[in-house]
Amino acid sequence: MYRLLLALGLLLALPAHAEEGMWTFDAFPSEAVKKAYGFAPTQAWLDSVRLGSVRLAGGCSASFVSPHGLVMTNHHCIRGCVEDLSSPQKDLLATGFYAPETKDEPRCPKVEANQLVEMKDITARMNSATKGLTGAAFNTALKAETAKAEAECATGPDVRCDVVTLFHGGKYHLYKYRRFQDVRLAFAPEFSMASFGGDPDNFNFPRYGYDVAFLRVWENGQPARSPHYLPWAKQGAREGELVFVSGHPGGTERKSTVAELEFQRDVALPYTLLYLAELRGMLREFSQGSPERLRTTRARLRSVENALKALRGRHQALADPALLAQKRKDEAALRARIIARPKLKASTAGAWEEISQALELHRPMLAEHRMKEVGDGFQSELFTLARHLVRAAEELPKPNAERLREYTEAQLPSLRQQLLREAPIPAELEVATLTFGLNRLRETLGADDPFVQAVLGREAPAELARALVAGSKLQDVKVRQALLEGGKAAVEASQDPMVVLARKVDAEARAVRRRYEDTVEAVLKRNSERLAQAHLAVYGTSGYPDATFTLRLSYGVVKGWEENGRAVPPLTTFAGAWARHTGKEPFKLPDSWLAAQGKVPPETPLDMATTNDIIGGNSGSPMVNRDGHVVGLIFDGNLHSLGGRYAYVPKTNRAVAVHGAGILTALEHLYGARRLVEELRATQAR
Amino acid sequence: MYRLLLALGLLLALPAHAEEGMWTFDAFPSEAVKKAYGFAPTQAWLDSVRLGSVRLAGGCSASFVSPHGLVMTNHHCIRGCVEDLSSPQKDLLATGFYAPETKDEPRCPKVEANQLVEMKDITARMNSATKGLTGAAFNTALKAETAKAEAECATGPDVRCDVVTLFHGGKYHLYKYRRFQDVRLAFAPEFSMASFGGDPDNFNFPRYGYDVAFLRVWENGQPARSPHYLPWAKQGAREGELVFVSGHPGGTERKSTVAELEFQRDVALPYTLLYLAELRGMLREFSQGSPERLRTTRARLRSVENALKALRGRHQALADPALLAQKRKDEAALRARIIARPKLKASTAGAWEEISQALELHRPMLAEHRMKEVGDGFQSELFTLARHLVRAAEELPKPNAERLREYTEAQLPSLRQQLLREAPIPAELEVATLTFGLNRLRETLGADDPFVQAVLGREAPAELARALVAGSKLQDVKVRQALLEGGKAAVEASQDPMVVLARKVDAEARAVRRRYEDTVEAVLKRNSERLAQAHLAVYGTSGYPDATFTLRLSYGVVKGWEENGRAVPPLTTFAGAWARHTGKEPFKLPDSWLAAQGKVPPETPLDMATTNDIIGGNSGSPMVNRDGHVVGLIFDGNLHSLGGRYAYVPKTNRAVAVHGAGILTALEHLYGARRLVEELRATQAR
Repeated sequence: MYRLLLALGLLLALPAHAEEGMWTFDAFPSEAVKKAYGFAPTQAWLDSVRLGSVRLAGGCSASFVSPHGLVMTNHHCIRGCVEDLSSPQKDLLATGFYAPETKDEPRCPKVEANQLVEMKDITARMNSATKGLTGAAFNTALKAETAKAEAECATGPDVRCDVVTLFHGGKYHLYKYRRFQDVRLAFAPEFSMASFGGDPDNFNFPRYGYDVAFLRVWENGQPARSPHYLPWAKQGAREGELVFVSGHPGGTERKSTVAELEFQRDVALPYTLLYLAELRGMLREFSQGSPERLRTTRARLRSVENALKALRGRHQALADPALLAQKRKDEAALRARIIARPKLKASTAGAWEEISQALELHRPMLAEHRMKEVGDGFQSELFTLARHLVRAAEELPKPNAERLREYTEAQLPSLRQQLLREAPIPAELEVATLTFGLNRLRETLGADDPFVQAVLGREAPAELARALVAGSKLQDVKVRQALLEGGKAAVEASQDPMVVLARKVDAEARAVRRRYEDTVEAVLKRNSERLAQAHLAVYGTSGYPDATFTLRLSYGVVKGWEENGRAVPPLTTFAGAWARHTGKEPFKLPDSWLAAQGKVPPETPLDMATTNDIIGGNSGSPMVNRDGHVVGLIFDGNLHSLGGRYAYVPKTNRAVAVHGAGILTALEHLYGARRLVEELRATQAR
Repeated sequence: MYRLLLALGLLLALPAHAEEGMWTFDAFPSEAVKKAYGFAPTQAWLDSVRLGSVRLAGGCSASFVSPHGLVMTNHHCIRGCVEDLSSPQKDLLATGFYAPETKDEPRCPKVEANQLVEMKDITARMNSATKGLTGAAFNTALKAETAKAEAECATGPDVRCDVVTLFHGGKYHLYKYRRFQDVRLAFAPEFSMASFGGDPDNFNFPRYGYDVAFLRVWENGQPARSPHYLPWAKQGAREGELVFVSGHPGGTERKSTVAELEFQRDVALPYTLLYLAELRGMLREFSQGSPERLRTTRARLRSVENALKALRGRHQALADPALLAQKRKDEAALRARIIARPKLKASTAGAWEEISQALELHRPMLAEHRMKEVGDGFQSELFTLARHLVRAAEELPKPNAERLREYTEAQLPSLRQQLLREAPIPAELEVATLTFGLNRLRETLGADDPFVQAVLGREAPAELARALVAGSKLQDVKVRQALLEGGKAAVEASQDPMVVLARKVDAEARAVRRRYEDTVEAVLKRNSERLAQAHLAVYGTSGYPDATFTLRLSYGVVKGWEENGRAVPPLTTFAGAWARHTGKEPFKLPDSWLAAQGKVPPETPLDMATTNDIIGGNSGSPMVNRDGHVVGLIFDGNLHSLGGRYAYVPKTNRAVAVHGAGILTALEHLYGARRLVEELRATQAR
């Protein structure tokens, strides 16, 4: 894959020694880095940065930045927590939050932190479990073996184990994480500052966001010890400096087949984009209805807008004929190499064709699958909880290997946390989103569809949604706990309308899931694995695997780029933020920042662009220098980075980070977060 | 083209004698119809149906159905009029409307009716005007000659002349219409009945809508004489019966190149779909805010939803690999035939390549063009009026041939009508849509874009929109009239904030328009014309031209189809509507229909499906039998008809109409519209 991407790089007339790559820690290309920058990380360096890295189970990255469990991440990664800790009287999203004493740090009900402590190659084990199998049988065996391996490894509630797929199934690893479930909020700036520039500036640069938050993991009622942490650098990053990003890129498709990319372009992305665009229009208007609506909707809206913009960027990348032309060329080259080697030719016989056929089956099934099973038709937290309760009652009595994946032993701690967390569920927003989902369900499947008729009866979506939300008691954790612990008997006896609905639709939702998994997912997995093995045989393992929300290290430099002939400099300053202030959202600086004019050096760096190869999921990743010391905090990429889902273009692809010096300056002089500043400064002495 | 489509028909294993075709009246394939059905329309039949046909300038079809200017069309075609005639106290969209006496018919402020009285082939004239020209020069000459030909023909305010493009420029005709500007409302059912089933049932069948309205054209203060009208059939249409549809299909792209279709699939449609989806989400939520919002937003929302669903259907058709594969095959076949003929090879040299290059130029320009010039960034009726005033002041002093197209002499009557009509402009909705547009403008071009900064200054979109709408006086027709008549001096002196904005953005909007027209539109037109001429040379003129909102005649039969192995019958009944009533919108029958149960035969036909080849723009088209007598009223197509934009698939493509018998029965027994029923029955006696 690396060579293929070099080819693409050359096509675009770019240097071939680009900083491309989301490398696993056990296969970092130290030699290449040494050659280009005269510095190579040692094993100790790699171990230390890995153990200092944190994954937030919700889909973000983070890092330990003190020995006392202090965790740094983005504000946007824990926006939900800030919202959960707010009330109509105390809007922490608006005001920001700082706990003057450690004991004042409140718990984030939905946040879980993971630390990667062990990685093990189990490819041989997984391959032998699926040997000779195809289709549904392949998938079933793969899932069963996954559940088994994870269950063996997950020895207690503090351990999380995931069988992770690398190289599209070319390799399987078992990742073992330490789980931290008591995660508390130490500091969050104002939402208006964290997301300064809002949706217009999102994925853009120059940028002036202070997208920073500090959490702390606790254990047994006190701050957890975190001996592996990343010290704060004495000096901030400068233009041209070599920097590393350690984090969890969520997913790339750089090695997908052309047929899969065309499917994304023509079917999957258009479906999702249209769903999100309409949802965004609804949520924006809904949030204008009252201050309370705005308060409870802001975070959700921002997530939807972020996803919409990111997916739009992906679609535009795929709609560029040059990208797919290059992919076609690469694929043809791989096929030619495979055909030239009889063993590979035999082992991949029909693989591309089977992938295309599976996608043809997926095409007419996609909307139905999304609506009935993935949840697009039931946009409601209460419904999600109800479905989990209904399914847990059904699945937990089964042998581990036969359960739906999210109910296997290894997943139970997360599931329990999700079901039993104390977090408000705003009823008005629930009604709005559920109405939206039910409307889309009816429109997508048609008013005459039996499933739609079973759901709606003679009700209109809005009325049904109102009745379900008003009638359900599932906002009460005790009610959920009773149903979870009561098992099948309790769930079947429940008259809670949301549980009744979840029961009613479950058989049909499971059926479409099964159809999808057996005829689409299984075929894609099996054949991707065959192609991946052939790819490894042809090109070797010197490349990096597509991102799968597993820990990766990337290297790069602080660097701007050229946009329409205009140079974009790599660093922005506090002065730039003051200049961008219009007084109107989303360009309204909070008072803390306005008051700092004249008190803080205006040239203090705020944000920066670097060439690191990152993608969604890397949000919250620490950026470190050669010493492994923190010089920044990833929070975004530029618009060009969105196409990085499919190919890294060195000339324009940029990561966007908050600058280390800016983080500290604002903490100290704007927010008076003396306690945290001292804790961070103490690490500089190391 | 006909042969190409036959090829597609065969590919799909369909009979080759399909009822495909949107035929011009001067080239109707009477022989083919005679062969298949034993009946061929005579010239007198064709003339009579043509002169009985009406075009609504807003984008619909209609027909004269009495000698006294009575016009039949769809409710959804004049929904805006019903809304314009409503007030918070008198919601005609909700209640429906019937004028007991002719003198009670109120005027529809925005509706204009056209009757096609003459068609003339001016291909030679147009070709000689552009001979030897390419690029911008070609376009300029084409526009100048168009303006000249139209101006020569348009001898007064009652005449409208359009140079129409047929066969993608293979032929140019001059169409002369009689204009009726005094159009009044005689009857409209309740919105809930006209659009029964709402968005879920839209483009679906079985269907139970009564999408019917009657207008009357007036002249000199009394009903106009309409000697050419379509009499009402004594007998309604029956399954298998041969029927004709005369109307104005808005546009098809069956003859577009593969590159153009790919551009639609990857760039143009995704852009528009995402814009509409978000607008829909916003408008739906907005309309829930108060009864007055609902009243003023319903019609707009319905139009947006209709467009969204139609374009989604188009996108899905293009995303089907089989369709584009066939188009590629057809294109290759045409190229092979062209290459074999040296003269054609020379006349089309580089044509496909130039089309592709123009599309590559269009790609990065599309969003900017839509935002700045087409109006996506300024979704506001007041802004549209302001821009017209600003541009009219600039354009009208120029020689006719040098003006922007919409300000040429031939277009002036329509423009004046648009500017000077009395119709309410709901301020709250204006603010909402303008806010939406300005937000999208900023997001699309970026907050740092100079144009965006010129528009917004330091204002937020919502605040600017509120200030503009509150400050503008353009809702007042007198203010607009003064500006129109005051010309450049008055417009330049105006301090009306909407006029100020329109002035401010005009240079830049014109610049992008010019760039688009010179480098994209001109190249596409010139090369489409070259290819079209070659196509005519290869395949002859026995086919029909792509639709261009010009009058066409299609033939077909009343017929159902098979959907997922299930037969869909071609007719629905009043009983079906009663069964579908849930009491909840959009499945809530109005009282008039509920009260009719037991009083009207339940088996009375309501809607029907036919194989006629129609497309958007055909809404409101009369459906006539062999005698040329009205047996139905087109109001929709099924979901499969949406792909008809690119190819007609006989097996599943269906037009959807209100049945003639159902129209009359409801008028008489449900609405007590005795006056109109008598007027229609009188025509049966002819």
